[in-house]
Amino acid sequence: MDPDAVARAFVEHYYRTFDTNRAALGGLYQDNSTLSFEGAKTQGVAAISEKLTGLPFQQCQHNISTIDCQPSGPAGGVLVFVSGSLQLSGEQHALKFSQMFHLIPTAQGSFYMLIDIFRLNYA
Amino acid sequence: MDPDAVARAFVEHYYRTFDTNRAALGGLYQDNSTLSFEGAKTQGVAAISEKLTGLPFQQCQHNISTIDCQPSGPAGGVLVFVSGSLQLSGEQHALKFSQMFHLIPTAQGSFYMLIDIFRLNYA
Repeated sequence: MDPDAVARAFVEHYYRTFDTNRAALGGLYQDNSTLSFEGAKTQGVAAISEKLTGLPFQQCQHNISTIDCQPSGPAGGVLVFVSGSLQLSGEQHALKFSQMFHLIPTAQGSFYMLIDIFRLNYA
Repeated sequence: MDPDAVARAFVEHYYRTFDTNRAALGGLYQDNSTLSFEGAKTQGVAAISEKLTGLPFQQCQHNISTIDCQPSGPAGGVLVFVSGSLQLSGEQHALKFSQMFHLIPTAQGSFYMLIDIFRLNYA
């Protein structure tokens, strides 16, 4: 496994899904997954999906600036650290953000997010 | 173990050490530790210490804005995600940054950084 390739592919898939079909993001979590979104913690597929689909904006576009990653643990996990900007529909300025994912291999050969932490970087 | 308490205590200790005695940071890593600093990867206590002490500024002051954390793995690890600003001596404006730590318990009852990823958030 090449952690950099896993990280790049996952990040691309995650943000494309977020920006085009946010309701499908639930498939990238499992019931032991946790999300911290701007400090609010939720756990499990249902609660995380509800949080993400309920965010108070409809259309958005993520633009990625940097992707860092490191392998994590003997089971083939990958820690991914992303910085970028988020353009919301109707807003003049993009919002800068940072986000980290702890990716864990699934029995099906893909990865899910055990941990997802998102923060806007306010000026 | 309270992951939030571990995270807060570690973050306070790390940045205080960084700002007052950077050469002592090496004691917070072990030889399987990795550092990604602005995309440059180093591994092991000696290489990480050399990278941190060789950064091209002398005095600095970190100010922390947010600390998020989640427990990680059965062995008592903690993932910590920090945002804040970094004031360099002689510079007018502080630099915003994000950083993540994967903390692992030591046999002595403290924690070391298995993974450390740092990024400036450019405007």
